[in-house]
Amino acid sequence: MKIHPGPAGDGDNLLLTDLYEVAMVDAYLDHGMNGTASFELFVRTLPDQRNFLIAAGLEQAVAFLETARFAPDDLAWLRDHAQISNRTVEYLRDFRFSGDVDALPEGTAFFAHEPILRVTASLPEAQMMETRLINLIHLQTVIASKAARLVLAADGRPLFDFGLRRAHGAEAGLLAARAAYIAGFAGTATALAGRRFGIPIVGTMAHSFVQAHRQEAEAFINFARSRPRNLTLLLDTYDTEAAAGTVVSLAGKLAVQGIHPSAVRLDSGDLAAQSQRVRAILDAGGLSGTHIVASGGLDEHVLGSLLTANAPIDSFGIGTNLTTSSDAPALDCAYKLVEYAGFPRRKRSPGKATWPGRKQVFRSYDAGGRIRTDLLSVAEAQEPGRPLLIPVMRNGRRVGPLPDLTAIRSHAAAELASLPEPVRDLKHHATIETGISPELEALAEQADSIGQVRPDHP
Amino acid sequence: MKIHPGPAGDGDNLLLTDLYEVAMVDAYLDHGMNGTASFELFVRTLPDQRNFLIAAGLEQAVAFLETARFAPDDLAWLRDHAQISNRTVEYLRDFRFSGDVDALPEGTAFFAHEPILRVTASLPEAQMMETRLINLIHLQTVIASKAARLVLAADGRPLFDFGLRRAHGAEAGLLAARAAYIAGFAGTATALAGRRFGIPIVGTMAHSFVQAHRQEAEAFINFARSRPRNLTLLLDTYDTEAAAGTVVSLAGKLAVQGIHPSAVRLDSGDLAAQSQRVRAILDAGGLSGTHIVASGGLDEHVLGSLLTANAPIDSFGIGTNLTTSSDAPALDCAYKLVEYAGFPRRKRSPGKATWPGRKQVFRSYDAGGRIRTDLLSVAEAQEPGRPLLIPVMRNGRRVGPLPDLTAIRSHAAAELASLPEPVRDLKHHATIETGISPELEALAEQADSIGQVRPDHP
Repeated sequence: MKIHPGPAGDGDNLLLTDLYEVAMVDAYLDHGMNGTASFELFVRTLPDQRNFLIAAGLEQAVAFLETARFAPDDLAWLRDHAQISNRTVEYLRDFRFSGDVDALPEGTAFFAHEPILRVTASLPEAQMMETRLINLIHLQTVIASKAARLVLAADGRPLFDFGLRRAHGAEAGLLAARAAYIAGFAGTATALAGRRFGIPIVGTMAHSFVQAHRQEAEAFINFARSRPRNLTLLLDTYDTEAAAGTVVSLAGKLAVQGIHPSAVRLDSGDLAAQSQRVRAILDAGGLSGTHIVASGGLDEHVLGSLLTANAPIDSFGIGTNLTTSSDAPALDCAYKLVEYAGFPRRKRSPGKATWPGRKQVFRSYDAGGRIRTDLLSVAEAQEPGRPLLIPVMRNGRRVGPLPDLTAIRSHAAAELASLPEPVRDLKHHATIETGISPELEALAEQADSIGQVRPDHP
Repeated sequence: MKIHPGPAGDGDNLLLTDLYEVAMVDAYLDHGMNGTASFELFVRTLPDQRNFLIAAGLEQAVAFLETARFAPDDLAWLRDHAQISNRTVEYLRDFRFSGDVDALPEGTAFFAHEPILRVTASLPEAQMMETRLINLIHLQTVIASKAARLVLAADGRPLFDFGLRRAHGAEAGLLAARAAYIAGFAGTATALAGRRFGIPIVGTMAHSFVQAHRQEAEAFINFARSRPRNLTLLLDTYDTEAAAGTVVSLAGKLAVQGIHPSAVRLDSGDLAAQSQRVRAILDAGGLSGTHIVASGGLDEHVLGSLLTANAPIDSFGIGTNLTTSSDAPALDCAYKLVEYAGFPRRKRSPGKATWPGRKQVFRSYDAGGRIRTDLLSVAEAQEPGRPLLIPVMRNGRRVGPLPDLTAIRSHAAAELASLPEPVRDLKHHATIETGISPELEALAEQADSIGQVRPDHP
């Protein structure tokens, strides 16, 4: 199988950026500001509906850093439309990322203010990567974090990504399948995600298949004969219970041909009540081995209700609420300059102040393996606990192979298991408040000597 | 300028689909079901936060239909992983869309149950396009509909798309810029959207530029000298009012070099209060011609409050809330079989029943040019009012050139002007309830004779 984890299409085109990145690079070069800079990507505050986040997207981010380029004709366009100097055009023509990256491994649980990724490179180089780096890490982190909540709610029942159609574009749909799989989903309906990432793929039938036949029973027989393996029949095109009866009445005829319905799917109505009735109809008809799959507007709260109601549903297809992370489609993330030319930097805007300097997160656990505290300190500190950020790239190259998707998925499962119960709770907001080390507090004071001399003004 | 409106990267790869589309095509071919089918794409119900929607994405949808292909190695993979027949592999190898499309022109306002787009083609062909067609139309319609609300709230003040970084991937960011421009935004920060679609691009500076300098004043001077045109200085890295004072104190020095700050940007804090104070500082310092741009977590409700407070803000940058449509990131849209082999079809699931047959929307206006009623009828009906769906493709080819982006944007502006006041209201839910013609009611009864014979079951 061909594995092509890099960004698709326009994704490695450096013109896919906020114009101001180019404007700043132009000004940096103009003033010889090419000293070493460190930028850190982090989330300022968690959405109310998120007690924890799951880091994802590093593989695509690294592929982007390796392959990002400007096309010559794009640079000519940029020179004409953004008034950049010939020096900048030449700089960007040869642009290759040659810096260092440290990051949380994909699948790691993290909290507000903790760096997900740090880029250390010349100032123009690190600046130039900002927009697309955020875009890539943000997307998969949003989806993996939502998917993890669904996985917790499903309490072991398999979940499948059905959400390509309403994901925000091609890349969102494809990478949502990956992010959901990292967080513990069992598979996806997106065929290309199966091919590209090796994720198990599933497919049932749509209402249109039933509607295209004059009779539902004929549709079921035709589908069964053509697609006998893992046969899943959709029941709710007309009347769900009647359709369940049809499946039972056809079962003998199909069994003669060696075909047994693996599952039926319910996609509308009162899923708790319908699944009970359909289960009874199937069981009474000798189809106790036929599973029930449910889909249609599901989220973690509906899953929780269905499980509480003991709905006999064996697996779930999750669409829109997964792939758009509909209750929290964005994170308050930023990529901020924390050090330049050897000096720590920070922003002091009200409500948006940041911690300066290159940082590390040290995580401590209780005897049961649950997270006790996270401590944010300076990168070179020796603090108790496990340091979370690890070296990923040096001088533009990977320090070693990144973990494969199976390893990432196992890591994410272990991370979910390490969350304290209140943080795993899906209904109440409780998060880990990251501690700040005295060294970091001192560095912040030092950084505040830089920046602004209040001029005399009226 | 090169215009390349087609889907990027994986977007024209037919493997980017739900697996069940392929499974159904396999079964259709197996049973010789290649009669003519019509599918319609529509929104079942509007989100509470949307009184109207703006159709967008048709240009990309048509480009997809023209270029969509399976790669030979993808088909080999599909044969092995999805158990499709050799007949299906051969069919998909030569697959080219050769059907008809009727659609709402981009920029058209529409409401629940109204078809946005209809595909008429052989059943397997029309089925195969489902997932990506929804994916493309949904994305831009979501964003254009959100952008239209922001445009109404801004009441003539220019809006700029700043949201690439938190859009869901590359394609979402790029197409969000296009959809927002259609709805009336003045431009985008996304450079590639400027190049590809001819949208005006804007760029200021980031906090990192200020932080990289030892003093804010030095950062302002350096940026001004390198980027004198449309110079916009960012004020809130440290203390906003002090920064405004710095701009004033530097103005004389810059004026000697022929440089005048076009604008200052505020990105945090109490924007109403800060903009008043910054305006006063600038005016007192002789910079009454310097505009104020605001950004940072803005949505239509914040815009409304700022305008009500008479905040002296001249233009706005809108990021995340635009490009993720954060209050309604998805629409309840579907692509449903409405006719097959000459007979109307419909789904009758509770809460998800659909109107059968090929349909047309007829729109009537009052004397002031505001929408009075929308009537949903059968496609060939002669009803009073303007028919909204127009022919777009016949036999796989465009019937003519689609309108350019400027024309689409003008059309959208006229559509916004045609909305009745309660529908333009951003705080209260009021929409147009589409009427159903007697012919369509009769067709629905006829369609209900198809589908399900309730079998005798316990």
